[in-house]
Amino acid sequence: MFQSFESHASPDQGPPRLAALRAKLRENGLSGFIVPRADEHQGEYVAARDERLQWLTGFTGSAGFCIVLPDIAGVFIDGRYRVQVKTQVDLAHFTPVNWPEIQGGEWLAQHLTKGVVAYDPWLHTPKEIAKLQAALDKTEVTLRPTANHVDAIWPDQPGPPRGRAFIHPDHLAGETSAAKRTRLAEVLRKAGQRAAVITLPDSLCWLFNLRGADVPRNPILHGFAILHDNGCAGLYADTRKFDAETIQQLGPDVTLVPPENFLPTIYDLTGQLVFLQTFLPIHYPFYDLKGPVLLDMSSAPVIVHSALVAAGLEVIDGDDPCRLPKACKNAAEIAATREAHLRDGAAMAEFLRWLDEQAPKGGLTEISVVQALEGFRRATNALHDISFDTICGAGPNGAIMHYRVTEETNRPVRQNELLLVDSGAQYLDGTTDITRTIAIGDPGQEARECYTRVLQGLIAISRVRFPKGLAGRDIDALARFNLWVAGQDYDHGTGHGVGAFLSVHEGPQRISRLSEVPLEPGMILSNEPGYYREGAFGIRLENLIVVGTALALGDNRAQMSFETLTFVPFDRRLILTAELSPGERAWLDAYHAEVLEKLAARVSGPTLEWLKGACAPI
Amino acid sequence: MFQSFESHASPDQGPPRLAALRAKLRENGLSGFIVPRADEHQGEYVAARDERLQWLTGFTGSAGFCIVLPDIAGVFIDGRYRVQVKTQVDLAHFTPVNWPEIQGGEWLAQHLTKGVVAYDPWLHTPKEIAKLQAALDKTEVTLRPTANHVDAIWPDQPGPPRGRAFIHPDHLAGETSAAKRTRLAEVLRKAGQRAAVITLPDSLCWLFNLRGADVPRNPILHGFAILHDNGCAGLYADTRKFDAETIQQLGPDVTLVPPENFLPTIYDLTGQLVFLQTFLPIHYPFYDLKGPVLLDMSSAPVIVHSALVAAGLEVIDGDDPCRLPKACKNAAEIAATREAHLRDGAAMAEFLRWLDEQAPKGGLTEISVVQALEGFRRATNALHDISFDTICGAGPNGAIMHYRVTEETNRPVRQNELLLVDSGAQYLDGTTDITRTIAIGDPGQEARECYTRVLQGLIAISRVRFPKGLAGRDIDALARFNLWVAGQDYDHGTGHGVGAFLSVHEGPQRISRLSEVPLEPGMILSNEPGYYREGAFGIRLENLIVVGTALALGDNRAQMSFETLTFVPFDRRLILTAELSPGERAWLDAYHAEVLEKLAARVSGPTLEWLKGACAPI
Repeated sequence: MFQSFESHASPDQGPPRLAALRAKLRENGLSGFIVPRADEHQGEYVAARDERLQWLTGFTGSAGFCIVLPDIAGVFIDGRYRVQVKTQVDLAHFTPVNWPEIQGGEWLAQHLTKGVVAYDPWLHTPKEIAKLQAALDKTEVTLRPTANHVDAIWPDQPGPPRGRAFIHPDHLAGETSAAKRTRLAEVLRKAGQRAAVITLPDSLCWLFNLRGADVPRNPILHGFAILHDNGCAGLYADTRKFDAETIQQLGPDVTLVPPENFLPTIYDLTGQLVFLQTFLPIHYPFYDLKGPVLLDMSSAPVIVHSALVAAGLEVIDGDDPCRLPKACKNAAEIAATREAHLRDGAAMAEFLRWLDEQAPKGGLTEISVVQALEGFRRATNALHDISFDTICGAGPNGAIMHYRVTEETNRPVRQNELLLVDSGAQYLDGTTDITRTIAIGDPGQEARECYTRVLQGLIAISRVRFPKGLAGRDIDALARFNLWVAGQDYDHGTGHGVGAFLSVHEGPQRISRLSEVPLEPGMILSNEPGYYREGAFGIRLENLIVVGTALALGDNRAQMSFETLTFVPFDRRLILTAELSPGERAWLDAYHAEVLEKLAARVSGPTLEWLKGACAPI
Repeated sequence: MFQSFESHASPDQGPPRLAALRAKLRENGLSGFIVPRADEHQGEYVAARDERLQWLTGFTGSAGFCIVLPDIAGVFIDGRYRVQVKTQVDLAHFTPVNWPEIQGGEWLAQHLTKGVVAYDPWLHTPKEIAKLQAALDKTEVTLRPTANHVDAIWPDQPGPPRGRAFIHPDHLAGETSAAKRTRLAEVLRKAGQRAAVITLPDSLCWLFNLRGADVPRNPILHGFAILHDNGCAGLYADTRKFDAETIQQLGPDVTLVPPENFLPTIYDLTGQLVFLQTFLPIHYPFYDLKGPVLLDMSSAPVIVHSALVAAGLEVIDGDDPCRLPKACKNAAEIAATREAHLRDGAAMAEFLRWLDEQAPKGGLTEISVVQALEGFRRATNALHDISFDTICGAGPNGAIMHYRVTEETNRPVRQNELLLVDSGAQYLDGTTDITRTIAIGDPGQEARECYTRVLQGLIAISRVRFPKGLAGRDIDALARFNLWVAGQDYDHGTGHGVGAFLSVHEGPQRISRLSEVPLEPGMILSNEPGYYREGAFGIRLENLIVVGTALALGDNRAQMSFETLTFVPFDRRLILTAELSPGERAWLDAYHAEVLEKLAARVSGPTLEWLKGACAPI
């Protein structure tokens, strides 16, 4: 799937909550409060207790924020949610604001002449607050970090998630946590940094070879960590999530500390305060925290930055040190991921065979298709979870890029339409994400022309070899060329990073005109061009690929290339063979032959027969 | 041609000159002197008097510099000149230095413990000197601007060029100088700048609708200008280059001032000095110069910056304000350029027909081919000059990217080899630059495969439509895809900017992975992928193209596209038709049909017959 999500809790809102919040603000002498759709870890999925924006406003989008002032409450939403917001919020009391065209600071300066606007410093990053502050510098409006005033009026707010933490075994991780910590500690020492503070859950999971269950779909563990330049680390996470074996796995150099001790420890370790000694476990293996300390100011909570500064530490702004090493998967992670994709490919083949059988009979709906697909994945007996809520759009619903079927929108799978299915799985050995667009009956020549162009884009990225040092920006055009030439395009990136049994969206790697991060061996990406015709149909085709050093060829230049990880046939009924170049045809036939070869032993009976037909040369 | 030149004066050098320079430096209490291959305008071509690097060292490359110290003289050359420098300089007295891997400042700090190193402040930019200075900050080596000590010991140094300045008429320029100055003055006012100092000859030519003859091949005028925010300007150029009519054309708001008054005027206009009043013409229409003043610190001489600062003016570093408007040609410039290309295309057709006739008979050499080609261009009776020294490489010489034939290297045009010819013309209505690679006999299947891939790259750039805002970087991969996939590539950019009867290389537009300048309507670029196999053959194919708003198509997205300006057939004997996609084939047939249609009335007899065959559908 492309990179953008929605949450799915049912909408509910109302002026009583807004009124209660305003009363609370008045009590505290505040003029306003900012309510983001964010948690302490700036994750794409948030736990139920962090759905404050939805609880207050009814808006369920995956991005946005509300600024509540005495006389106006602005709901800031980006282009994806302009329509949706109007159906979800009470327009008599909430005012949608087109963001980022109108920035929060600018809007605040327009709607408030003076006063104090509060925010929860756990939910905003230093960069975010600095930007807001800059817009208010010449006004009489001040920003103030406070407790969360929504939490104060939310009587039945769920507690923090307490999903079980579990070991991601070394044979799948390919590198022990100790080795990773040693490697990173050396990078810190070389940069003259004494420690790094880590606040991103994916990074924690990677660094400690752990997984968790704190949000839906992504097996992440909420927490914080301080990694010292000697390779020792403090892991600040709810100890009740850990069983004895998991704690054991952390080893002697990692100390598990309850998260409420995270900030106090920063003070304590710098020798400024001693009152917390009683909280610290006996074996806490490091005794001081000196600067400079590395912190990612674009993802860490602003309160963490404030605490480090208050403790007298020099803070260096830089990328989370786990982010790039995590993105570059090692051989064991790639091997495990390959296996996950073959398992998933067999389930997809069962699904596509079933769909080809059932669709002509009629009676299918988007919901029944989603359920059947999840059933085929469950039948592998290896499904940990699906990796995101399946996108299944029939006919015109396929053109709604962020579509998730509900009982209200559920559309029958009709004859002579396209069906777009974008889905994925979390297996213990890997994360998958695949999109196929399927012909139900005959969707017509125009649909086949567009499908063929999208397929040509996918094939171009699959085949390309390119010099080391190029970024996603440098190759994005290859996926769009045939659409562009026909006056068409798609308004999302060509590919996002994917984790190894971790988040289905990860950075920094992307294939996008916005990405200048060089592509490096081991990075897993999606390759998913698309085409969307509003009110008519949507097409997207997606394989996962992994960056590698290309085999010697031609002039033996040092080149990179992509290895395809996904093995599932494309719908040959939608391919205009005569439009393909010889190279494209050769790639497609070779890919289909490989699909058959790899999946033949994993399916049988009618599915094997179906697969042979689907994989025959075009 | 791709972007890189050599000068062609004959090599000559010798230790006596080096010894004389060192004596001069001692006389002045200096430890060193920097001798760049540059003039006051940082041009690609320099006049004979500015060939100081060559005069001193013998090195004739188009880029590089020498740092002369008491015991060592380093000649800094980039990757293109590593071999050449060794054949041209006296290695007993000059030491080649690999630049930019080793930077001048770093090398200086290694080879000189203390002392004063001098440079001519007319020949270096503020950015260059600042970089050098930064490397010497912690040393006891100081930099000092002085007179040019090479000039002091060069008895027969030629004088400054005194080429005739002439009018580039408004009907070709498409906009009067007054209109351009009004337009730029408004930009200055909006930016809060009171004036801009212009030191680039292309910019002067564009701004005043003038052309000149101060360097070979490019019709530029050397000089400086101060453009005020009221649209008035001072043009500092040798008045002896101007006849009465040309001065008249400058109009009442432009004052022509001898260049020796350029710096004094800066002081004078700021009211600091009055002794120069006598130099100023009566009608000097502006009486003060206030800051801020815009100056391009990456191309202006450092002495100009120093003078502005000494005059108490605030200096704003920014792009030369003419550079982008000059790059975006107007409708009249594009129309004129189209005509120049058709004239040039007819001459090229005569040449290619002649080559096809003569080559089988034997007896041709690279030099005779170059002479014949220039003859066909002269026969148009419209040739102002060729736009650069023709690159004509037979067989393995085609693989030498910067090849210019000499009597020593002159190679016969042999059977069963490729011949690469990269050439261009300056006509009063436009600048051309075209490369064709021609089969002499049968150069073999491998050559045809490579030729076809290069052609596919050219076709991709010719066909592409893309969203507004993209830069050369975003589309460069399209030209390389088929080579990349075969393990091949070329080590130069895909396209450079081209002027309108101006320099054959201009910025800021490029098609290159290094260019992040958005492509805008009216920008003329080359489209010239290539492939080079050392010791065997070279292939390059080049058309000029102009950026435009694409015609509505498909979903009516706002798209840009390229219009091809060059109309000359490609060698069908080298095209593997079966390798082309349907879209590529269609483009090629349509292009050839258009070549025939456009040139048919301009050629006749055997050339017309030849053209019909060359342009038939493949």
